[in-house]
Amino acid sequence: MTSELVESLFLPRLGTEQLRAGEDSGMAGDRALSIDSFTVTPQDFPGGDIGWLAVCGTVNDLAMVGARPAGLAAAFVLEEGLAGDDLARWADSMGHACREAGTELVAADTKVVERGAADRAFVTTAGVGVIPKGVRISAALAAPGDTVLVSGPVGDHGATILSLREGLGLDADLKSDAAPLVEPVAALLRACEVHTLRDPTRGGLAQTLNEVAAASRCRIELDEAAIPVRPGVRAVCDLVGIDPLEMACEGRFLAVLPKGHQRRAMEVLASQPLCRSAAVIGRVGEGPGDVVLRTRAGARRLLAMPLGEHLPRIC
Amino acid sequence: MTSELVESLFLPRLGTEQLRAGEDSGMAGDRALSIDSFTVTPQDFPGGDIGWLAVCGTVNDLAMVGARPAGLAAAFVLEEGLAGDDLARWADSMGHACREAGTELVAADTKVVERGAADRAFVTTAGVGVIPKGVRISAALAAPGDTVLVSGPVGDHGATILSLREGLGLDADLKSDAAPLVEPVAALLRACEVHTLRDPTRGGLAQTLNEVAAASRCRIELDEAAIPVRPGVRAVCDLVGIDPLEMACEGRFLAVLPKGHQRRAMEVLASQPLCRSAAVIGRVGEGPGDVVLRTRAGARRLLAMPLGEHLPRIC
Repeated sequence: MTSELVESLFLPRLGTEQLRAGEDSGMAGDRALSIDSFTVTPQDFPGGDIGWLAVCGTVNDLAMVGARPAGLAAAFVLEEGLAGDDLARWADSMGHACREAGTELVAADTKVVERGAADRAFVTTAGVGVIPKGVRISAALAAPGDTVLVSGPVGDHGATILSLREGLGLDADLKSDAAPLVEPVAALLRACEVHTLRDPTRGGLAQTLNEVAAASRCRIELDEAAIPVRPGVRAVCDLVGIDPLEMACEGRFLAVLPKGHQRRAMEVLASQPLCRSAAVIGRVGEGPGDVVLRTRAGARRLLAMPLGEHLPRIC
Repeated sequence: MTSELVESLFLPRLGTEQLRAGEDSGMAGDRALSIDSFTVTPQDFPGGDIGWLAVCGTVNDLAMVGARPAGLAAAFVLEEGLAGDDLARWADSMGHACREAGTELVAADTKVVERGAADRAFVTTAGVGVIPKGVRISAALAAPGDTVLVSGPVGDHGATILSLREGLGLDADLKSDAAPLVEPVAALLRACEVHTLRDPTRGGLAQTLNEVAAASRCRIELDEAAIPVRPGVRAVCDLVGIDPLEMACEGRFLAVLPKGHQRRAMEVLASQPLCRSAAVIGRVGEGPGDVVLRTRAGARRLLAMPLGEHLPRIC
């Protein structure tokens, strides 16, 4: 049972236009609505935990359609016998992340299931967001001539979880990038025009940009040397043979901007603590909906959609 | 680990005023927002399945603050190896329930976890709702002199799941009452003033009315003989020794109305297919926040808050 199979089962049955569109948030009337279940294991990791991640993931899904969170809801499926200390720590993290994102929990639900019926804790968060007047962001709006930028180094979250799970031994600098992107995105939208925003979570930059290229029917041309990857992330990727461009981030975004907005965007991001290593990594050209990578060696190759998931339960 | 313990851990850490208030939906800005995880087992039961229940539960939580659903989101945690046929059937049920409730899924997420990490399927739904102008419904608004009514027979959902789980053998008429309450509630709100709406899910009518009495600091006086309970439900309850008033419903609501609105309310409910057996079951008096039951025998006793959950994973 893969996510692809699930989609093929759901879409014909439930598939409203909105689900088919595949944006990170849908529209419930004039409000953005997003939902994500978090099943990450281990639930605690350098740079965060399942509570922190669950809030960041959902406010980021709202941010990717240009929405500011107006309120969050959280539902917990907890295995009987789970330590109260763990739960308290995750709840503290959720509170902290909500404050950073400028929002709060307005609804919650808890279900306790018998031992063995769930792996410790699954946390589902949903968020409602307000899109500022005049803002229209979509994966389908990238256009030839646009610039592609990334808000920071890629792959940290995925490499951190993978390293923990495989017992690779963590580089001291390796930690999840999970963070709420509400502020940097709001600053960017105030400063310049933006066509597309996406956070490269499952399948990393490779999957996300392939989805954008397909939705916009264009070719995205990337410069591999320009894509920031931390040495610790690269080391983990080399060890396990996974492309860092397929590694999940949980606190980065990709932005596609019209020509002429690049300089202002980079200035704004430089002033955002989370985005100090933002970089222009490519441009949009004419094409059939694919992603081409100019490698460090100067060759050009298709950057394909990742096949399946390298690692389930990364978020 | 009980729900009470979880609350005692969460509320000080995450507890906004809204979570403390304990309404079925919170307010995200000017929109209602609700969330619920569904872990019911078995996932298929007479009268519904986990997909049907997940949509009904969330649109009903919106209805209980007077909101009409503007859009739903669903997140699935699925155990590897789950049969595609099961998933397809549940998705069909969700689509059906959405149509009955006059709404649609606008966002979805799926996580597949390894075999043994979840018990087949957990479904979490969140809903955004719009509260009509002038409508203000809250558990804290019941006032002395008000009338209490229930929209139909109580305990069918709980008795059905219990009967299946305990292998009691199902009465042919016994099936879950799970249903979307969007239409009857909208009709009621158009026709008369309503102070409080609650659906008696976990802990049944006993828990729900104790919560209302506590939030409103009043005494709710019930007439046991007036509370509709189907014979099949009563038979299951007698067999296992659980009060039908503590059995969960998933398609009924309790309404507290100001004096003088009772007749109009009963007329409206009589025209709603789901509410043909609606009944006036009591009144609100002065009191410290408790529920008093006048029994069939004419005695009066406190109807206490149920202690713990008789049966986890009922929804």
